[in-house]
Amino acid sequence: MTNILIIGCGLLGSSLLRRIHKKRLASKIFVYEKSKKNILKIKKLKLPATIIKKPEDAVAKSKLIIFCTPMNEYKKIILKMNQNFHSKHIITDIGSSKCKSLEVINKNLKKGIFWSSSHPIAGSEVSGPENGKQNIFEDKWCILIKGKRSNRTHLKFLKSFWRKMGSKTVEMSPDKHDKIFSITSHLPHLIAYNLVQSAQDFEKKQKYDLLKYSAGGLRDFSRIAASNEIMWRDIFFDNKTNVSKAINLFIKNLKSFKKDILSKNNSSILKKLTQTKKVRSKIIKLKQDINKPNFGRD
Amino acid sequence: MTNILIIGCGLLGSSLLRRIHKKRLASKIFVYEKSKKNILKIKKLKLPATIIKKPEDAVAKSKLIIFCTPMNEYKKIILKMNQNFHSKHIITDIGSSKCKSLEVINKNLKKGIFWSSSHPIAGSEVSGPENGKQNIFEDKWCILIKGKRSNRTHLKFLKSFWRKMGSKTVEMSPDKHDKIFSITSHLPHLIAYNLVQSAQDFEKKQKYDLLKYSAGGLRDFSRIAASNEIMWRDIFFDNKTNVSKAINLFIKNLKSFKKDILSKNNSSILKKLTQTKKVRSKIIKLKQDINKPNFGRD
Repeated sequence: MTNILIIGCGLLGSSLLRRIHKKRLASKIFVYEKSKKNILKIKKLKLPATIIKKPEDAVAKSKLIIFCTPMNEYKKIILKMNQNFHSKHIITDIGSSKCKSLEVINKNLKKGIFWSSSHPIAGSEVSGPENGKQNIFEDKWCILIKGKRSNRTHLKFLKSFWRKMGSKTVEMSPDKHDKIFSITSHLPHLIAYNLVQSAQDFEKKQKYDLLKYSAGGLRDFSRIAASNEIMWRDIFFDNKTNVSKAINLFIKNLKSFKKDILSKNNSSILKKLTQTKKVRSKIIKLKQDINKPNFGRD
Repeated sequence: MTNILIIGCGLLGSSLLRRIHKKRLASKIFVYEKSKKNILKIKKLKLPATIIKKPEDAVAKSKLIIFCTPMNEYKKIILKMNQNFHSKHIITDIGSSKCKSLEVINKNLKKGIFWSSSHPIAGSEVSGPENGKQNIFEDKWCILIKGKRSNRTHLKFLKSFWRKMGSKTVEMSPDKHDKIFSITSHLPHLIAYNLVQSAQDFEKKQKYDLLKYSAGGLRDFSRIAASNEIMWRDIFFDNKTNVSKAINLFIKNLKSFKKDILSKNNSSILKKLTQTKKVRSKIIKLKQDINKPNFGRD
């Protein structure tokens, strides 16, 4: 058995910690967490972590190192850890955007060291170690990134590791990854934030008490728009070219929608409203969502 | 005990039928449904309905008449029923948009007849009588509309009726109703349809298999975008002025979002991403959504 080092112990870092412990995959799980508040929570929850004060402290003793911090923190931490990194270290991260972060990693990671990036498609609108769950990765996809600094043997190890986390794995280039997730994840989050903001703007202007009537649709968006702001700022900034293209496509379609409404174009609007219906059943069939009306809420 | 006539027996019509029967609020519940497929379903489900062949057939025997059809069908049915309507009939509908439909009602409803409109904020992405539930209105708001043809005594009766359906009631003008729901319901649905369509456009162009990665956000939108197309066409067309204004506000905010991303405006984007977070907790506090991460799905 080997030791594992988790850097950043929020929702996903603490979920990894719980799962690794449950599956007995490590002799010791070292955790570096910069937030004192989170360290107190980890201790109070009695999570099975050996907390270290500096990220570089446990590198020599660890085989697998997993970055679970916001992406803007990678550089600073890498520079601190570089002196202790060895080519045998299996290093990965769980960031949601890849091209830009891998550029930063390439630039700052010591020569001869490998970095094989991961992206588990798991998360929630709540954050912090108290919300982590050992089964959060179960039946979810985990994308493994073939990049300039990735290593075939390490990717093979990570594939097996993520399967033990409960995930299905697939390999992708950073470019393909960032394009796909700009549409399936980054744009939906941005749109949700934007919708909630528009509702707030309207509420301020009209002085209407809107939120009590949010069960008609808005509430669904408010969930996603409650996601962690630091994480999402980093994603939007890092994947800005793809996200910006996605916004343009979205606005183009929205203008066409508006035109159909204002001109009461029956056949065009019915085409829009029926084509999209098929997507839900596909998503259910692919087991990407619960097969219950209203997400089984009511 | 009185007789009730339900016109249109889809998701909400059949939910009313179930609830009225369960609470023993009517001696007989007449149901007019134009779809033969739905009539077969109603019979197969053994729903407690007396099915009538023409909407006008049971008017004389009914005290309360509830329109549950798509809004574009009101006119045709009213013209058929006019000869049998009496000023004592309590007539309501459950349409999601009010100004335009009340205009049509005013224009076509026989003089001296009252119409006191309702809007229960309940629904689902699934439709049809097989998906109705007697508790679908429970703890939901029902908006009662004070309009040109509404009647104080009838509104009082309807207030009590909707409370028996499990709802909380509030009175509103048609204008205020249509403004509020353009933001809390109509825009969110339109945005969801538009997002799913944009994902489909992207998928076609890039030939990527997107939907299997929809758990990262898109899946939430696909639920709403699976809603009934006829109902939503009618809502968008009927409330087109408010919906169009809502689209404009949304695009304005989206362009500002894009600008912040492209210019990496840290303070401005963090302001956007934190302000919206508060909305979720307000919605939970107002009991408009389930208090579980991920809607309790995973």
